[in-house]
Amino acid sequence: MNVNAERLWRRLEALGALTDPGSPYTRRSFSSLHRQGRQWLREQFLAAGLAVSVDAGGNLIGRLPGEDSGLPRLGSGSHTDTVPSGGRFDGIAGVLAALEVAHTYQDQGVRLRRDFDVIDFLAEEPSEYGLSRVGSRALTGDLSAAMLAYESPAGGTLAEGIAAVGGDPAALDRPLLGNGEFAAFVELHIEQGPVLEKESLSIGVVTDIVGITRMDLAFSGQADHSGTTPMTIRRDALVAASRTVAAADEQARAWLDRPEYVVATVGKLDVKPNASNVVPSGVDMTLEVRCSSDSVAQSIVEQICEVGKAASEQLGVAFSSALVSFSPAAACDAGVQQAIEAACRQGGASYKFMASGAGHDAACMSKLCPAGMIFIPCLDGRSHCAEEWATKEQLAVGAQTLYDAIRLLDRR
Amino acid sequence: MNVNAERLWRRLEALGALTDPGSPYTRRSFSSLHRQGRQWLREQFLAAGLAVSVDAGGNLIGRLPGEDSGLPRLGSGSHTDTVPSGGRFDGIAGVLAALEVAHTYQDQGVRLRRDFDVIDFLAEEPSEYGLSRVGSRALTGDLSAAMLAYESPAGGTLAEGIAAVGGDPAALDRPLLGNGEFAAFVELHIEQGPVLEKESLSIGVVTDIVGITRMDLAFSGQADHSGTTPMTIRRDALVAASRTVAAADEQARAWLDRPEYVVATVGKLDVKPNASNVVPSGVDMTLEVRCSSDSVAQSIVEQICEVGKAASEQLGVAFSSALVSFSPAAACDAGVQQAIEAACRQGGASYKFMASGAGHDAACMSKLCPAGMIFIPCLDGRSHCAEEWATKEQLAVGAQTLYDAIRLLDRR
Repeated sequence: MNVNAERLWRRLEALGALTDPGSPYTRRSFSSLHRQGRQWLREQFLAAGLAVSVDAGGNLIGRLPGEDSGLPRLGSGSHTDTVPSGGRFDGIAGVLAALEVAHTYQDQGVRLRRDFDVIDFLAEEPSEYGLSRVGSRALTGDLSAAMLAYESPAGGTLAEGIAAVGGDPAALDRPLLGNGEFAAFVELHIEQGPVLEKESLSIGVVTDIVGITRMDLAFSGQADHSGTTPMTIRRDALVAASRTVAAADEQARAWLDRPEYVVATVGKLDVKPNASNVVPSGVDMTLEVRCSSDSVAQSIVEQICEVGKAASEQLGVAFSSALVSFSPAAACDAGVQQAIEAACRQGGASYKFMASGAGHDAACMSKLCPAGMIFIPCLDGRSHCAEEWATKEQLAVGAQTLYDAIRLLDRR
Repeated sequence: MNVNAERLWRRLEALGALTDPGSPYTRRSFSSLHRQGRQWLREQFLAAGLAVSVDAGGNLIGRLPGEDSGLPRLGSGSHTDTVPSGGRFDGIAGVLAALEVAHTYQDQGVRLRRDFDVIDFLAEEPSEYGLSRVGSRALTGDLSAAMLAYESPAGGTLAEGIAAVGGDPAALDRPLLGNGEFAAFVELHIEQGPVLEKESLSIGVVTDIVGITRMDLAFSGQADHSGTTPMTIRRDALVAASRTVAAADEQARAWLDRPEYVVATVGKLDVKPNASNVVPSGVDMTLEVRCSSDSVAQSIVEQICEVGKAASEQLGVAFSSALVSFSPAAACDAGVQQAIEAACRQGGASYKFMASGAGHDAACMSKLCPAGMIFIPCLDGRSHCAEEWATKEQLAVGAQTLYDAIRLLDRR
């Protein structure tokens, strides 16, 4: 193994220790803790021999110069902000693995042809301004003036927040990066799911980053006495909603034998008036469909809504649906997948090709350049919680795979 | 029409005016307002020429003496306590209609063969002591020592509450009434449902008072990331619960062509953790089945629980069910139903035979004597709310039907 597993682990522990002591492990974007973390990271970049900068979108970049800085460069990284009580691996592992790879190249005198950027994207998690993936949106020009005017509960706009971390909001009216600037981008991340652990595999080679469609579905019936209202004339919103929840599960399972990754979830459901002896008058619920194909996702959402509509009509219930948010699916580049697979074989790491069910900075980067992701297992598939965990060895195998993949991509 | 519609309506308005001014129309059992109401009612009983007493169970009784007090007597009545903001008709209409019938007999010199008791049962609605149908339970000997020791949040036991309204808790260790004491009992009540109004009928001749089974059903799965957890390994408690809600509706509808009255409701359902991007780890819900046949109810509850169990097993979810409460169904006496039907025909009132989907004092009385109920329509089928309403004419037609039915029963 080339990378230094101990150094990588020490850095992970050091950054994890910069947490809100009341709710470990919390380091919210734009907070003073986040600034402390970045100050620490800047020092680590310098210690690894990287040239440090902050771009107009507030992304912190450590560059390892290659032989020919005129060539499209390589990139790797993730984010160092967390959700509340969010853990020590989500995002952090990807930034520090990329740093470890660059540091190892530097230590061992491995000279890449291309410049290699280690990137700490700004505010990948939903920030206090109500927006996620702030830094990677800036790269692709997806930060609108309206978004830059979003305010945090504490006051101040997102533009001011970006300026405070060293960015330049005035430059964000256009993409910070052009299409030819990167030759490839690879993000390492914990899987945030149980598949690799269950199958005792070291690496997930990500094929697609799912698109996410969220819909608010509302069922409006009539509150009636549960004893004196015969079945024939009641308008039970919960019965209509329940058939729709069951349909969401069935529709997603219908794709189990197909290549597309599909999951459908009703995670939030509220009943009104929610009393044991009153026929439910209303149900509000959120339907979330995540899919590697946007057209499949659209078709599934439509079919689930059809069931909701038909059940509601049959039961005398009013049904409405509203799109809450949509982020498109991003396919990972075939060449990058091949490089990661080759790296796994080279290092003897077991692996499988799999979709990412969560969104990542790499999805934004895939609009600009060939992009891919390396997943490592995490304990019980858990993330966004204090118990989020991966072992030193799992992290090191991931970093070594990244080390080899970047070298392979550099030679192309 | 024999009864005095105006006098009945004036009394209804007068009693309704004795309400907690902050939440009309509230007159909770054991409250000072309830005592004021009973003082007023006592005066009305006396004005109608009735002999007034309070029995050991705290029931207020106005007796119109018949020709032969040695004969089993007749009874009618309901209750004058309300649920919070409970309305001006539920219970009250039945007491005042019975009073109006007795007053009319008295006015018009109609002498019954039998004594006729107008009864204001104590605390039919769930009281501050956590118990409902206190007075009618006392008649059938269904007030246990444990129940008499129930305490209200304000302090004091139910036994003390009964004593304060003039009852004798020491006498409640046995039924206050024997089986032969009443020849018949008829309770007039608003339907509390929409059937009579929808079908433009004046009277419901009640065939059965439903039994009520309440079950707590709990589904325990696992909270997982809604994006990264494939359908095959998630343990979604809400999907299992939803199939069970749909099954409850289907099971009840399967009895639509059968003589038994069946309704099944999941009115209360809570999801944990209830977040749009988390697979639900738990659902707690209440299943209520009301049925005119206890054996049918039991079979339906079992079938619904079977669906819950099977769906849960298939989804890797733990399922448990617990009986919360059961009150048995009570059939109304065929002879009393015939007398009510004959009274409807005599008065030209349109009617239908129907089950009562709510519990009533008459269900207790049916253990002691031939008992029945007269339903009158109520606006939009609503009850237990400030908007609860029936018209002066609807109430008068009900009272006239009661007048004729009691006379018919007296002659048997």
